[in-house]
Amino acid sequence: MTIQHDKVTIFDVAKTAGVSSSAVSYALNGKSGVSEVTRAKVLKVAQELGWKPNRAAQSLAQAKSRRVGLIMNRDPNLFSVEPSMMGMLSGFGSELERNDYSMLLRLAGSSTEELSIIRDWTATGNVDALLLLHLEIDDPRVDLLTKLSTMPALAIGDPTLAPELPTLHSDMWSAAERAISHLRRYGHRKIARVAGPEEIGQSHVRNTAFLQAAGQQGVQYQFVHTDYTADGAVEATRALLNAEEKPTAIIYDNDVMAMSGLSCAQQDGVVVPRDLSIMAMEDSFVCHIMSPHITAMSRNVTEAGRMAANIMLRLVEGEHIGAVSEPPYELIERESTGTVPSTNA
Amino acid sequence: MTIQHDKVTIFDVAKTAGVSSSAVSYALNGKSGVSEVTRAKVLKVAQELGWKPNRAAQSLAQAKSRRVGLIMNRDPNLFSVEPSMMGMLSGFGSELERNDYSMLLRLAGSSTEELSIIRDWTATGNVDALLLLHLEIDDPRVDLLTKLSTMPALAIGDPTLAPELPTLHSDMWSAAERAISHLRRYGHRKIARVAGPEEIGQSHVRNTAFLQAAGQQGVQYQFVHTDYTADGAVEATRALLNAEEKPTAIIYDNDVMAMSGLSCAQQDGVVVPRDLSIMAMEDSFVCHIMSPHITAMSRNVTEAGRMAANIMLRLVEGEHIGAVSEPPYELIERESTGTVPSTNA
Repeated sequence: MTIQHDKVTIFDVAKTAGVSSSAVSYALNGKSGVSEVTRAKVLKVAQELGWKPNRAAQSLAQAKSRRVGLIMNRDPNLFSVEPSMMGMLSGFGSELERNDYSMLLRLAGSSTEELSIIRDWTATGNVDALLLLHLEIDDPRVDLLTKLSTMPALAIGDPTLAPELPTLHSDMWSAAERAISHLRRYGHRKIARVAGPEEIGQSHVRNTAFLQAAGQQGVQYQFVHTDYTADGAVEATRALLNAEEKPTAIIYDNDVMAMSGLSCAQQDGVVVPRDLSIMAMEDSFVCHIMSPHITAMSRNVTEAGRMAANIMLRLVEGEHIGAVSEPPYELIERESTGTVPSTNA
Repeated sequence: MTIQHDKVTIFDVAKTAGVSSSAVSYALNGKSGVSEVTRAKVLKVAQELGWKPNRAAQSLAQAKSRRVGLIMNRDPNLFSVEPSMMGMLSGFGSELERNDYSMLLRLAGSSTEELSIIRDWTATGNVDALLLLHLEIDDPRVDLLTKLSTMPALAIGDPTLAPELPTLHSDMWSAAERAISHLRRYGHRKIARVAGPEEIGQSHVRNTAFLQAAGQQGVQYQFVHTDYTADGAVEATRALLNAEEKPTAIIYDNDVMAMSGLSCAQQDGVVVPRDLSIMAMEDSFVCHIMSPHITAMSRNVTEAGRMAANIMLRLVEGEHIGAVSEPPYELIERESTGTVPSTNA
């Protein structure tokens, strides 16, 4: 056979030998997890194809790579979650270095590309552990990592979204409870939430939490799914404000949508918070751009990053870890929430 | 003497031996750059104090660390430049990994802390090269790195701000020329710019570029410095719109200020772009949050990140590099710029 790549990879060896790339990785790195027959076959094929170990693979054979990996998915719908990413990465990186670890950060153009990077890292041992961002419902990355079962991974998100993996999450039940009771104290009884896409795990978890909190506190609650964009928030806001059962307060799943909703309300002559209260479930500089400044639920993202690094290093050491909680969301009251309009009181 | 730290560091050895931390690093790693007398003294002190080489130092002695470092400064004034950072980091990380390099990312709470991280990295060899973000005028990091002279560093910013270092910058002269001529084609002859702080290098470079472009194209040009925040932009916008020589178009140094200016103008009853054109010198999702969407000058940040990684790897190989240009800014025309109001035509 002819190899088209400039360099023979572990995947070429796998294809020719008719075994999985993990099997090749085990065989070439002298690890257990593969039969002696397969090992012999892999070594023979590797030699025939002229495969040479790369630095990372050598490092795997000798020791840990002392690197952890994370992948940014360039999905435009996720741009709006970026404001908090830098804070998280800073905490993450600082804690890694304290432990003589460094990070690999890759850009994926699609979900398929992200899965292929995960396969690649698992086969080459270029990282010792993975951080998964933005969990989806039935996330294919969770499936893949469970199948591969060799790469320690921490998922950022609710444990119900990745029961097979260690997770780091902030308690959405208490966050929903705080958000609703903040508005309830101002007299609001009709509250709406502008949520992200239905398939994003976070939207789903929040729906359940808000339904419960609203039920417990006796307020009417409705929600609208959007595509997480500013334009989606405008559409949802207009629909809510023109509905028969008009809410007196709207909670947006992120800061960008809250701001977009605020802007749209103002353009339609709605005065915030006199006529409508607005709050955001994520906090960043975006909440300060417009007047009134937006009340938000805020996470300590730097601390979350530190915790994530710490958990990953413990996973690399072979420790078994389940679901870990971040510090709870805090309510940062600014100017966009206030007493319910008197006609609704 | 008693060492207060849990672990004896290279700095403890330096203090006791009465030499610089770089001298200790040279001596302990068997490198030239230190006299034999000093080397002997350092080795003796190190032994007496019970200093042990850490992994990073060993790695330095044997080979490169194959890591590069960058520091995020948690200056709240810089939050607004973060939207483009994730794109840059993604390109940067992907290119590093292609070369079997990884990154250390540290969070600094202040400029002093950032300098101390640079000193630390230089002494320990924990990174092979440094990326400097957000150059200031008379930047103390440039001074420090020039003095240390052992750590390759790439500065992101105009070469005039760090003539001693290799730099990566986007041509501000052509960007200013494009921005002004875009507005000029719509008939604008009175253009103002809301700039960042005077001490930030980028504001200074842009002032010069815009003064020249405006002069060449025969338009009136004025500028106001701000603290880069949304609130600063509101103040500047109100001042400009109440001035006798009211501009018909305002260019903001970043997307966050442009959006804040747009919001403030709308609240004062100014219709954009009918009464006033607005554009931003940086582009991100922020330009899409409000209606009208904001016309912006856009950089290919992912490509800039890739180029930065590439230059740093060449620096590590000992290559001499001066000022490198990114791909030029592109004008992304959206809805916030248009024909000059007829009273001003």
